Amino acid sequence: MLDLNTVNRVAIVGGTHGNERIGVQLIKKFEWRPDDVQRSSFSTQMLLANPRAVAAGVRYIDRDLNRSFERDRLQNQMLVSYEDHRAKEISQIINSDSNAPVDVILDMHSTTSNAGLTLIIDEENVFTLRLAAYLQQIHSSVKVYSTSHSGREQDALRSLAKFGFCLEVGPVAQNVLNADLFQKTELLIHTILNYLEQHNRNEVKLLNCLLTLYRYLEAIDYPRNEHGEIQAMVHPQLQFRDYEALHPGDAMFLTFEGETIKYSGTTIVYPVFINEAAYYEKGIAMCLTEKAQVII
Amino acid sequence: MLDLNTVNRVAIVGGTHGNERIGVQLIKKFEWRPDDVQRSSFSTQMLLANPRAVAAGVRYIDRDLNRSFERDRLQNQMLVSYEDHRAKEISQIINSDSNAPVDVILDMHSTTSNAGLTLIIDEENVFTLRLAAYLQQIHSSVKVYSTSHSGREQDALRSLAKFGFCLEVGPVAQNVLNADLFQKTELLIHTILNYLEQHNRNEVKLLNCLLTLYRYLEAIDYPRNEHGEIQAMVHPQLQFRDYEALHPGDAMFLTFEGETIKYSGTTIVYPVFINEAAYYEKGIAMCLTEKAQVII
Repeated sequence: MLDLNTVNRVAIVGGTHGNERIGVQLIKKFEWRPDDVQRSSFSTQMLLANPRAVAAGVRYIDRDLNRSFERDRLQNQMLVSYEDHRAKEISQIINSDSNAPVDVILDMHSTTSNAGLTLIIDEENVFTLRLAAYLQQIHSSVKVYSTSHSGREQDALRSLAKFGFCLEVGPVAQNVLNADLFQKTELLIHTILNYLEQHNRNEVKLLNCLLTLYRYLEAIDYPRNEHGEIQAMVHPQLQFRDYEALHPGDAMFLTFEGETIKYSGTTIVYPVFINEAAYYEKGIAMCLTEKAQVII
Repeated sequence: MLDLNTVNRVAIVGGTHGNERIGVQLIKKFEWRPDDVQRSSFSTQMLLANPRAVAAGVRYIDRDLNRSFERDRLQNQMLVSYEDHRAKEISQIINSDSNAPVDVILDMHSTTSNAGLTLIIDEENVFTLRLAAYLQQIHSSVKVYSTSHSGREQDALRSLAKFGFCLEVGPVAQNVLNADLFQKTELLIHTILNYLEQHNRNEVKLLNCLLTLYRYLEAIDYPRNEHGEIQAMVHPQLQFRDYEALHPGDAMFLTFEGETIKYSGTTIVYPVFINEAAYYEKGIAMCLTEKAQVII
C-alpha cells in the first residue's frame, strides 16, 4: 500500500468549478493571508483552478475541468478546449519541479446535495486512511466517501499528486456563499494541514481507530424517456437524505404525475450526491454506496 | 383602485430564468396535459419564456429577461440582445389580440433564499389583494411580498398584463428540481385558477379577511471593497431567516475574518431574498421589507 515519509509540498485548490464560491473565496483569503496555511515542515501553494469559469459564475467554460486530467488528454495536443488547455497548465504547475513535486492536493468543492462535510478519497492506502481517520476523530461529523473504482483517481485534478483529497460541503446552491460552510471548510483545511505537520514530525497518534467509509457502488440516473428527458424527480422522502440507509422498496423518485418509483435493489445502500445540480447532464441522480468500517 | 370584471385570458409562464427548473418542468407538464389548467370561464395559455437560457441551464443568455420589459426597451429597435429580442416576441404573444389581451400572468420562479411559498404582487389594487387574501386563506403558509415602489411593475415580464403575479418558491438551488416545491407550486397555480373561475362567477367569499403583506423598503448590498469585491457573507444567524424580524443590532454579515457586521437600522424590518444566488451581480444581499396588515 502507498505511503509517504515526508510531505514537502501541498497545494490547496479552489474554483475547479467556477460556480462553487466557497473554495474560490477561501483561495482569495489564503492568498491574502498566506501565513495562515504555511506550516514549518512543508510549503503550501494556492491555486485558483478555473479562473475563466469563476469570472463567468459557471461550472466550466467548455468541459468539466475536474474530468479533464486523464493522462491521455494531458498529452494530446489536438485538444484545444479552454479546460484542456488549463488542465495542461495546472499539470505543469503541480509538477513544475520534478525534484519536489506536490505531494498532497486539497481540492475544495461544494454541492447542492446534503454532503455535510465530506472528505472524498480515491484510494484506500495507509496515508490516506490515516489522514481520514484523524479528520473524523477531530470532527466527528465528517463523512468519508471512497470513490473506489469510479474512475475519479484518473480524471480529477486531485489525481495529479501522489495523494489527492477533495473536500465536498453542502447543501449549498451554485453561486452562493454560505458562511457556515465557508468557516467549516476553512477549519477542515487547517486540521488537515496540522495533521500533515504532525505526520512529518512523526507525532500522529491513532490507536485502534475505527474509520467509517462509504464506498462507491454505482451511479443511478433519473428515469428518462426516449428523448433523454427526465421523467421523475428525486422523491421528497429521499431529498437531502445523503448517507442514510436506503432499503429495498423505499421511495426513490417521484414522477411529475405524482407516482412513486421505488428502489428496486435487494440490499441496503447509502446514497450520496442526491440531486446534485451539475449531475443532471452527467446522467446521475445519486451515487449509491455501501457502508464499511476499517480499523486503522 | 384597479379592478377587473371578467378574466378572459390567463398566461402561465415558466423559464423566465433558464436555471429555475420547477417552472420549466411545470410548463412541460401543463403543455402535455392542458386540460388540467383550463377552466370553463377563461382560456389558459402556457409560455416557456426563455428557451435558449433553459437549454443552456443559465439564468439568461445576454441580460436578465425579467428586467427587459420597460416600455422604452420594447419599442427600441436598436436593442439586439437575445433577451431584448425575446421580450418583444413575448410582448406580441401576450398582446396579440388587442380585443382579447391576456388579463392575468402567473410567472413561476424559484430562489436560493428561503422564500417558502411567496406570492409577489407589484400593485395593491382590489383584484390583486383579494386574490392574495384568498390564496393565503387556502394555504396559510403563503407569504405575500408587495414590491411597492421597487420598479418591478415596469420591467418584469408579468407587467405585460393588467394583472401580473409571480410565484417564488425556495430555498432551491439553481438547476435543481425539488419535488416538494414542484408539487406545491402546482397546487398554488390550481388554487389561483380556481379563484379566477370563482371570480368570474361572482362566487368569491371573503369577509373581513386580514391579509399580511411584506412591503419592499430597500435593497441591501454586500459590503464591498473599492474594486467591487464582496468583503462579507450573509451571517449564519440571518441565513434562511427570510420573513423573520431583524432588530437593530442583529447580526447581518460575517466578514471572511469572522467579524460580525450588525444591522444598523433603527426600526424592525423583515428581510427577504436573503442570499439569492442571482442577486450578487445586482448588488443585492437581501431586500428589507416592513410587515403590514390589510383588511380585505
